[in-house]
Amino acid sequence: MGTSSVSQEASYLQTAIALAERFQTDAAERDKKGGTPKQQRDWIRESGLLKLLIPTEYGGDGMPWSAVLRVIREFARTDAALGHLYGYHFLSLSAVHLAGTPDQKRHYYEETAKHNYFWGNSVNPLDDRTLGERTDDGVIVNGQKSFSSGSPDSDILLLSWKDKETGELYKGMVPTNRPGVQVHDDWDCIGQRQTGSGTVSYHDVRLYDSEILVRPYEVDNVFSTLTPILSQSILASVFAGSARGALEAAKEYTSTYSRAWYRSGVSHATEEPSTLSRYGEMWAAYQSALSFVEKAAAHLDATWEKGSALTAEERGECAVLVAAANVHAGNVALDITSRIFEVMGARSTSARFGFDRFWRNVRTHTLHNPAEFKLRNVGNWFLTGQTPEPGFYS
Amino acid sequence: MGTSSVSQEASYLQTAIALAERFQTDAAERDKKGGTPKQQRDWIRESGLLKLLIPTEYGGDGMPWSAVLRVIREFARTDAALGHLYGYHFLSLSAVHLAGTPDQKRHYYEETAKHNYFWGNSVNPLDDRTLGERTDDGVIVNGQKSFSSGSPDSDILLLSWKDKETGELYKGMVPTNRPGVQVHDDWDCIGQRQTGSGTVSYHDVRLYDSEILVRPYEVDNVFSTLTPILSQSILASVFAGSARGALEAAKEYTSTYSRAWYRSGVSHATEEPSTLSRYGEMWAAYQSALSFVEKAAAHLDATWEKGSALTAEERGECAVLVAAANVHAGNVALDITSRIFEVMGARSTSARFGFDRFWRNVRTHTLHNPAEFKLRNVGNWFLTGQTPEPGFYS
Amino acid sequence: MGTSSVSQEASYLQTAIALAERFQTDAAERDKKGGTPKQQRDWIRESGLLKLLIPTEYGGDGMPWSAVLRVIREFARTDAALGHLYGYHFLSLSAVHLAGTPDQKRHYYEETAKHNYFWGNSVNPLDDRTLGERTDDGVIVNGQKSFSSGSPDSDILLLSWKDKETGELYKGMVPTNRPGVQVHDDWDCIGQRQTGSGTVSYHDVRLYDSEILVRPYEVDNVFSTLTPILSQSILASVFAGSARGALEAAKEYTSTYSRAWYRSGVSHATEEPSTLSRYGEMWAAYQSALSFVEKAAAHLDATWEKGSALTAEERGECAVLVAAANVHAGNVALDITSRIFEVMGARSTSARFGFDRFWRNVRTHTLHNPAEFKLRNVGNWFLTGQTPEPGFYS
Amino acid sequence: MGTSSVSQEASYLQTAIALAERFQTDAAERDKKGGTPKQQRDWIRESGLLKLLIPTEYGGDGMPWSAVLRVIREFARTDAALGHLYGYHFLSLSAVHLAGTPDQKRHYYEETAKHNYFWGNSVNPLDDRTLGERTDDGVIVNGQKSFSSGSPDSDILLLSWKDKETGELYKGMVPTNRPGVQVHDDWDCIGQRQTGSGTVSYHDVRLYDSEILVRPYEVDNVFSTLTPILSQSILASVFAGSARGALEAAKEYTSTYSRAWYRSGVSHATEEPSTLSRYGEMWAAYQSALSFVEKAAAHLDATWEKGSALTAEERGECAVLVAAANVHAGNVALDITSRIFEVMGARSTSARFGFDRFWRNVRTHTLHNPAEFKLRNVGNWFLTGQTPEPGFYS
Repeated sequence: MGTSSVSQEASYLQTAIALAERFQTDAAERDKKGGTPKQQRDWIRESGLLKLLIPTEYGGDGMPWSAVLRVIREFARTDAALGHLYGYHFLSLSAVHLAGTPDQKRHYYEETAKHNYFWGNSVNPLDDRTLGERTDDGVIVNGQKSFSSGSPDSDILLLSWKDKETGELYKGMVPTNRPGVQVHDDWDCIGQRQTGSGTVSYHDVRLYDSEILVRPYEVDNVFSTLTPILSQSILASVFAGSARGALEAAKEYTSTYSRAWYRSGVSHATEEPSTLSRYGEMWAAYQSALSFVEKAAAHLDATWEKGSALTAEERGECAVLVAAANVHAGNVALDITSRIFEVMGARSTSARFGFDRFWRNVRTHTLHNPAEFKLRNVGNWFLTGQTPEPGFYS
Repeated sequence: MGTSSVSQEASYLQTAIALAERFQTDAAERDKKGGTPKQQRDWIRESGLLKLLIPTEYGGDGMPWSAVLRVIREFARTDAALGHLYGYHFLSLSAVHLAGTPDQKRHYYEETAKHNYFWGNSVNPLDDRTLGERTDDGVIVNGQKSFSSGSPDSDILLLSWKDKETGELYKGMVPTNRPGVQVHDDWDCIGQRQTGSGTVSYHDVRLYDSEILVRPYEVDNVFSTLTPILSQSILASVFAGSARGALEAAKEYTSTYSRAWYRSGVSHATEEPSTLSRYGEMWAAYQSALSFVEKAAAHLDATWEKGSALTAEERGECAVLVAAANVHAGNVALDITSRIFEVMGARSTSARFGFDRFWRNVRTHTLHNPAEFKLRNVGNWFLTGQTPEPGFYS
Repeated sequence: MGTSSVSQEASYLQTAIALAERFQTDAAERDKKGGTPKQQRDWIRESGLLKLLIPTEYGGDGMPWSAVLRVIREFARTDAALGHLYGYHFLSLSAVHLAGTPDQKRHYYEETAKHNYFWGNSVNPLDDRTLGERTDDGVIVNGQKSFSSGSPDSDILLLSWKDKETGELYKGMVPTNRPGVQVHDDWDCIGQRQTGSGTVSYHDVRLYDSEILVRPYEVDNVFSTLTPILSQSILASVFAGSARGALEAAKEYTSTYSRAWYRSGVSHATEEPSTLSRYGEMWAAYQSALSFVEKAAAHLDATWEKGSALTAEERGECAVLVAAANVHAGNVALDITSRIFEVMGARSTSARFGFDRFWRNVRTHTLHNPAEFKLRNVGNWFLTGQTPEPGFYS
Repeated sequence: MGTSSVSQEASYLQTAIALAERFQTDAAERDKKGGTPKQQRDWIRESGLLKLLIPTEYGGDGMPWSAVLRVIREFARTDAALGHLYGYHFLSLSAVHLAGTPDQKRHYYEETAKHNYFWGNSVNPLDDRTLGERTDDGVIVNGQKSFSSGSPDSDILLLSWKDKETGELYKGMVPTNRPGVQVHDDWDCIGQRQTGSGTVSYHDVRLYDSEILVRPYEVDNVFSTLTPILSQSILASVFAGSARGALEAAKEYTSTYSRAWYRSGVSHATEEPSTLSRYGEMWAAYQSALSFVEKAAAHLDATWEKGSALTAEERGECAVLVAAANVHAGNVALDITSRIFEVMGARSTSARFGFDRFWRNVRTHTLHNPAEFKLRNVGNWFLTGQTPEPGFYS
């Protein structure tokens, strides 16, 4: 349940909860500043949580995606940017699992587990300004990528480019400190302000063949097309965590600061019937989102475990469930993060509390890709049985 | 997932699905007629599903409440009244489990399992017109009870009365054919028309001590106060099943009857983007309700299994989760059952389809007790940690 | 204001209010029966209100459309079917104003005013089963028209057909008792049950040239394309009136029948804070719809008065405002007619009150043409300045 | 209509529109900075609009409140803070009209008209920290007032205090530069950031008898209790103007920046059907709010003109209509200002556009007093006929 003790929880979760509490102390301040949460990223590195998903044979904890999503929700409770960064670390890393050779998979999993590498993302498929030129033993990349979440302070970047000659799309992994890679500090958004989702530019950046994914978008390999499902799962958990965080912040405020309305006839804000039923509504909505997200996460675990045996049908059913959970959780989070003010009152809008950051974060993040097109896929599947065509966002 | 095959499902579920299909053939017609679905009730009797929850030691199937709720959802998919009747059979029967003596429990469980008895309900706590007068070996009951769901064609009735002298509330079990019991055919509502939720009158009805529950409302026995949680769980599953049924009926109609709007630019209604995204929205909403209801059902199973070891705190957490799931599922069902017409079009309002029965059923059933007061309990618990005070409806 | 006295109102309105009260006495019963409200239609005939819009020079009252819409709202308050029938009387009659010759206009206006003729509608443009064959002095029509609202007990029918040879669409006026016209009693819908919106069949029905509109769809005559705007205005007022009627019925019930919830701590249902705020929400929503509908009605009056001087731009702005008001009023009415039960309580679902008819009426009527396509027209106009292309429904 | 030309509008409105355009150029920037919009306030002073409401006999323009509200909406379209400040200027000034002696009314009206004085507000009734001590010819005020909107850069302040001995509440007018008055620059909120709604402190501030309102809260003078109705009217127009501004900003962005989704099949964002219908929905919602606000404004004009002849009943009906319009406009504005991002897309969340300020402004301002309590008053009036008890906020 939402607020129950977690004494019986797994140790990774206790670690995550403890980190989330540390994030909270200056979350509102850091949101105002934007930039990179260097200290917090280092705490995550030190915590060992960056290897949670890595199979034990490669030195990781061998936990499923649902565990990663659980951690994301804990982080997002106090800091949605850190939830996003943590999730996108695994989204980038998972490229070697989905589309790498066995050697690449082993190498990157092992190195990441050993050094607690933090991965960043530089693969915005709608930005085609990065071009690669084949050399004998690799490729030279030039150009720019916007929306490169988690690139600042990353150790390894997953990047994508178009082959200059064939126009084919490729993905590869590169240490962020490789010559020619320049991470710009140009992310200035109304929300998710510390995700560093700005531009990375590439000036004659050399990637070796071992750093290039052989078949990132190979259509005959259903398993390799899971990326958008992972991404939507991550975002759904950021939304659910944000909703919970907003509710808990409001509860704290109502319990301590709010005054009963002078004509309410009650002495404490926590006794006002309409305040109670509104909290009830919001908590019920949050639980509906959480239940859905949890169900979709279990489905994702089963899908992930199928590996290359995954069928298009199975992929499609998972895609539909995750897309629907993502949209529902996003809507619930949008609503809750806006409504909390109504149960706190006028003085809760003081900028020193920074309570608007919950809404700004969710509002920003729910636009990552249009809910409308996810819903059409869901509806089409329900009506006609056709699963969504795998793509950048579906 | 909503429409996946169930070939791998448990046999009880296959039985339920087969029954639901038979219910469907004349569901719209029977809704118009109202009255008692005698044939369908007999099919349920014959199916053996009336002993699903009864522990194996008493001749039942020993399945948990979540299995009962699962069957309710299948029934409600095509006929919400039958979902209700089936659920309330166990609600009434469970009184002997919660508050009966070991002998009563054994007796009623065994008899019900052996004869496939269908229980009816005659305990509306807000109607205090039934009075009991003590005799040497029992009580004589006189008066009336409204909202006696499932009383027509029932084999055993759970009834309640006030002791004429002490004013104390009692519950007891009586064969429906006992002299003096008269089930009136006076239920005429806008929805749930075949639940037979009318009046039962009692004229000098004699109950023996073995038919009287010793401590139906004993406050020091937390376990005995589960009734409203069971009732809310049942209704939540009726709502979820109704929502699914409405969606499936709409899908069938859109796929076969609906015409594309003459200015839509598409040739089939199933290609219209706004129709797809609306189905997507409704399916996502339904899945949020289903996920929540399933989660609450699992919580209920664990709570039920605790038996007399159940603490007030544990009862409270279950009550809150179930109440929230109930309200959420009710709202989702209300919305879906009204919106389906928008994806079917004007001609779907023809009375011969009877598609309005979904909304009428949900609208009627969601008023069973006010959502507002359930939400206040939920909100109060979230804000202050106080669990709901056990009562007739909480 | 919603419930203020109307002592100062115009006499036509007093007449309408008095009629509405008479409609109310058996509105729920008549809804159950369906069929034709013959008695009520005759009361309307006798009231003189059928000539309200007819210019004084033709023997009418010379009132504007806004007055007609005002009457529709009063009727719809107690009986949405009668509101619809009254509005569609003028919708049909107005064809001679929009697209008739001066002689046709004079003739039909005068005859209608003199005899209090009640017009019916038989022009469903999506049903192309009626065909006309030219003769020397007119046309012979054969075929059928569905959705012929108001055809039973009508004196004159506005009908449409396709010319068998040219495929051109025509409209004409015919006395309903003309040989070959057969009005079927086959309307059986979940709502608007007494609008008689069934089928009319035509067997060698002869229309003379004087009964045929010369240019019903002439594109160079902007004024002649107002029909869908009139129709949407009429429906918007049916919605607003239905919403008000539902609210008033609920108020009456809450004030007299509803019991305070046993745990509410108040003694009367009208003291429960959440009941008060819900009534406040619904009344505010209703007033937003009413204000919008009134504003659109004033705009329609100005548009109507322009006659053949009307420009495409002016028509478009009116079309957009009316379409938006129609959709808003429809949504508000849908919501209110479903929510009233929450402020009345479980016992208000008894079929004897028939309170579900408000929702069934609105649900049926709001599907007349899809809100989605009206909203696209509105959005397109707002975004790009393009006015909706005149058509059957825009 | 929303975007029609205003060539035919009154000159005051043209002045307002021209000012609003000047406000727009740096509205997003000024929002970030907060503080006092000194330049913009001076432009308003120079425009002459500060005397719009002042009767012509005192040197003003003699326009009604509806004209003031119209200007507020124009201002709020580009800058909700300036809309608020302009409205509260008249709210404060109107105290001399409602509760002043004839001499006070004349003096302050004339001085304001002559010098274009900008009034500020320092009367928060829920902050009782200002106390007054009677002297022979006036009072000496000490203490502080929070939420003193418009106090920075004001010429005259309307303030309130409690009499130290009797506890009675008083209001008075004082030049802001009077010794002892200190306006603090301590307003730092998530929205309405340039309203200067911070603290004013009073150190031995002397007010003369001529500066003290004789009967600010005299219950037998219904007319003197209009203040909360004026305040709610002002806020309602700030909401409506904000909603329109958000819609127009979104339209501009969608038309120029937005890209069609890569799988939408259309080439321009303005052709995407779901974008069109969403704009349609938002425009319809905005128009419902605008229609309601305009209707309430007309009612307010009539109420204001009644002066001391106003009855409690008339006051109550106006209060109910204005409260309902206020809540509806606030809800519409909240929804639109959050949803605009969905029709603009992910890149519209860049902080350089500052599009979140619309939501932050509305979110802040809608909390001025709880919608719940306004709605209860509305609902209670609808149900029982009781008009709201005049008070600080009703």
